Amino acid sequence: MTKKQMKLGAFFFMPGHHVASWRDSHTDARNGWSLPFLTKIAQTAERAKFDNIFFADVFGQKIEQNSNSGLKLDPLVIISALAAVTKNIGLTATLTTTYNEPYHVARKYAAIDHLSGGRAAWNVVTSYNDKEAQLFGVNEHLKHADRYKRAEEFVDVVKQLWHSVEEEALVIDKEKGQFFDLNHVHPVKHEGDYFRVDGTLDIGATPQGHPVIIQAGSSEAGKELAAKTAEVIFTAWQTLEDAQAFYKDVKSRLAKYGRSEDELKVMPGVFITVAKTEEEAVQKRNELNSYILPEVGLAYLTSQTGFDFTKYDPDGPIPDFGEHETDPTNPNIRTKLIRGTIEQNGFTTIRQVYEHIAGARGHREIVGTPEQIADKLQEWFENGAADGFNIMAPTFPTGFDDIVELVIPELQRRGLFRTEYEGTTLRENLGLKKGTYSRPITV
Amino acid sequence: MTKKQMKLGAFFFMPGHHVASWRDSHTDARNGWSLPFLTKIAQTAERAKFDNIFFADVFGQKIEQNSNSGLKLDPLVIISALAAVTKNIGLTATLTTTYNEPYHVARKYAAIDHLSGGRAAWNVVTSYNDKEAQLFGVNEHLKHADRYKRAEEFVDVVKQLWHSVEEEALVIDKEKGQFFDLNHVHPVKHEGDYFRVDGTLDIGATPQGHPVIIQAGSSEAGKELAAKTAEVIFTAWQTLEDAQAFYKDVKSRLAKYGRSEDELKVMPGVFITVAKTEEEAVQKRNELNSYILPEVGLAYLTSQTGFDFTKYDPDGPIPDFGEHETDPTNPNIRTKLIRGTIEQNGFTTIRQVYEHIAGARGHREIVGTPEQIADKLQEWFENGAADGFNIMAPTFPTGFDDIVELVIPELQRRGLFRTEYEGTTLRENLGLKKGTYSRPITV
Repeated sequence: MTKKQMKLGAFFFMPGHHVASWRDSHTDARNGWSLPFLTKIAQTAERAKFDNIFFADVFGQKIEQNSNSGLKLDPLVIISALAAVTKNIGLTATLTTTYNEPYHVARKYAAIDHLSGGRAAWNVVTSYNDKEAQLFGVNEHLKHADRYKRAEEFVDVVKQLWHSVEEEALVIDKEKGQFFDLNHVHPVKHEGDYFRVDGTLDIGATPQGHPVIIQAGSSEAGKELAAKTAEVIFTAWQTLEDAQAFYKDVKSRLAKYGRSEDELKVMPGVFITVAKTEEEAVQKRNELNSYILPEVGLAYLTSQTGFDFTKYDPDGPIPDFGEHETDPTNPNIRTKLIRGTIEQNGFTTIRQVYEHIAGARGHREIVGTPEQIADKLQEWFENGAADGFNIMAPTFPTGFDDIVELVIPELQRRGLFRTEYEGTTLRENLGLKKGTYSRPITV
Repeated sequence: MTKKQMKLGAFFFMPGHHVASWRDSHTDARNGWSLPFLTKIAQTAERAKFDNIFFADVFGQKIEQNSNSGLKLDPLVIISALAAVTKNIGLTATLTTTYNEPYHVARKYAAIDHLSGGRAAWNVVTSYNDKEAQLFGVNEHLKHADRYKRAEEFVDVVKQLWHSVEEEALVIDKEKGQFFDLNHVHPVKHEGDYFRVDGTLDIGATPQGHPVIIQAGSSEAGKELAAKTAEVIFTAWQTLEDAQAFYKDVKSRLAKYGRSEDELKVMPGVFITVAKTEEEAVQKRNELNSYILPEVGLAYLTSQTGFDFTKYDPDGPIPDFGEHETDPTNPNIRTKLIRGTIEQNGFTTIRQVYEHIAGARGHREIVGTPEQIADKLQEWFENGAADGFNIMAPTFPTGFDDIVELVIPELQRRGLFRTEYEGTTLRENLGLKKGTYSRPITV
C-alpha cells in the first residue's frame, strides 16, 4: 500500500502573500492583472502537482497611499481564464454568500466545472465588513449568527440547483427529437428564511457532480457549517496543539451528518520562506519585513484587533489590546491568534508583532531549508493536525518558484506528496467522491 | 483614403442559432460546454477578423422535452476563458441590470478587460421574464419603464466605479513606499433611486478606459438609453426601410448627449445560410427547418406573441394574433416584427411563419451564395441602415465555417471588411475612442 500523501493548495495572492511584497525588487504589482503572468505561475503550480490554486477575495478594502491592498482582480474571472491554460490543477475562487444570489453562484461555478473538465472549487465565505456592505447599499453587515444561517441556506440552495438537471436528463436523441428526459429534471422550489428560488439551473450536472466546497470559518458556527457542507476546510493555526484540537473537533462533528472523516480535508495555511541555507532564508524573510512601513504595520495590527495601534511607537512595548474585537458578534479568533503568537515567540515590541502578523497574515510561518520545512509539514501531517496545507508564498514568482524548486521535491522524496496527478478532476486528486445531493423522497 | 469598412460580430449560440440546430447531424449540443470546442470556433472567428464574439444570455427558460433551449453556459465565464486562448478578437457577454449589483458587474468586466488586454464588452439588457424573477425571490418582473430607469442608473454607477481609480493613481514607487496617488482616486458616493454605492472599485482603469457598452433595446426607452450610454447597438430589422429609419432615429439622438454619430455603431443581427449555389443554400435551410417539431414551432410562436398557437394546425391559416403582448408595459416590437415578416414574405400558413421566425429567431434571414449575401449586407451598409452586422450562424461549427470560408473572403475582396486587425483593443477595432467618465466638477 502506498503511503498516505498530503494535499497541497497554492494560495495565489499577487504580488505575494507578504504585505510588503509589492516593494520587493523581484515583484511587479501589475502582474496581478496580467494573464501571461498568471498563466505562467498557474502552469508552474501544475508542474509541481499542487492539488489546486486558491484565490482569496475581499471587498471594500480602503485605498491607501502606502499599500497595494485596495487592489484585487475578481477571482471567478481569473480561474475561468486559467481553466483554458491548465489541464489538471484544481481552480478555487472565494465568493461570499452575503451579497450574492444562489442562482448566480450555482450557474457560474457549474460553468467553470464544465469548462475545466471538473476542476472547480468554491471557497464559501461570509462578509463581516461594513465597507463591503456599503458597496451594496447596506449600511451595516449582518450579525455573525445571521451570516452563518444565510450561508447554510445559500449552500443548500446552490447544491439543489447543481443537481436540478441530472446527467441522465440529457438524452439528446436527434432522430426522435427528444432533448431532455424530464424524469431526471428536478425544479427547485425553495422557500427559506433568506431565499426563494423557483426554477431549474440551466446547465446539467457537472463533471464533478458538483464543484468542491471549501470553507474557511473557525468559529463554532463555522465549524458546524463545515462539518455539514464543506469538503475542504482552510484554517489558520500557529501551534501543533491548537491545530490538532481543531482537527479532532471538526472531524468528530462529521458522523452526525452521516459523513466519514475522509470526506472533509483539513488544510491549514502555511507561509513559507525557503532557501538552501537557514541563514539565507532568515535573511530573505528579514529583508521583506524591512519593507513594512511602520504606519502600515500599525494600521494592519489595528485592523486585525480593533485596538488603535496607530499612535504607538513601533519599537515600544506591546500595549494591552484586550477584549477589542473587529466583529462584536463574533468570538474574535484573530485577537486570540495574535495573543498566542506573542506568547509563543516571546515578542516584546510592537514591530516584532506586526512583522510576524503582516508577513504571514495570521497564518503559521515557517522559515528555513527545504528539509526544515518538510520536517515541520510532516510533523503536522503525521500527527493528526492536517490532511494537507495551503501554501503561501511571500512573493510571486520568486518566493513561489523557491517553494516549487526546493520544498516540493523534498516532500516527494519523502513520499509525502504525489509525483503525478491521480485523476483528471479535483475531487479525484483530493480523494473526494463525486458530488451528490440527497433530495428528500417525495411520494 | 481607404474605403469605410463594416464591423462584424460573431453571435455564438450553441449548437447553432437555428432553434432545431441540435438535431442537425453535424452538431453536438454538448459542444456548448466544451472548452476545446469553444476555443476552436473562437479562434476561427479571430482568423476571420471578426470584431468580436458575442454571447447572448437569458434566464429562466423552461426545460422541455423537445428543446435544448433550457441549457445555457454563463457567458461571463465563457469569455473569461476565451480571453486566454485568443489575442485580438473582442469578447462580449450579455448581463442583465435587473437582478445584479453594479459593483459586481463593474468588477467582473473590468477584470476581463485587464486579462484580455482591452477586449471586453458588456451587452446591457433588462429582464422581462417572470420565470427569471422567480429565480431571485421576486414574483413579478419590474415594469418596462422601471427596468429602463434602473438600467440607466446601473450603467452610470458602473461607469463611475470603472473610473474611480484612474491609471495615474498607480504610482507604485517601491523605494518611497508609495503605491497610490490618492489625487487620482475618486471614491463613488452614489445615492440614487435604485442603488446606493459608497466605495471604490478595487481595480484600476482598464486597458480600454472601460469595456465597450453594447445595448439591444429598440423601444423608445431603449433607444434613448442607447443614445446616452451605448457604443454599439444590436437590433433586429427585416427591411431596409425599417433599418434605415431606426439608424437615422438613434443617430439623431446622439447630439443632445454631446456625442458624434461615430460614437455609436448600429449592428443589426443577420441570420445567414450560405453555400456555393443558391439551390444548395436553400436546401440546407429547408433541411434545418424540417427538424423543427410542430409543437416546438407553435410554442415558439406563442412565446413570441403571447397568443396561444399551441392548439392550431401548423398547416392551417394564420389566426389573428392581434394585440397580444408578451410584456403589457412594453410596446411589443416582436409582435410587430412578426406581422411585418408575414406581410413581406406573403406567408399563408402557421408553419411558414414559425419556420421563418424560429430559425432566425426574429432576425433578418439571408439565404444564398456568397455574392448574394455580400450584396445584401453591402446594400444595408452603404445605404444608412447599418455600421456592421451581428452574424448568426445556423449551426456550429459547419454553418459558421461556411460563413467564414465563403462570405468573409467575398466581403474582403470588395474592400468592405478588414484583412488585418487595426488595433489590439476592441475599441481600436470598432473605431471607438477610449472609455471615459465625465465626473461633475466639485469645488
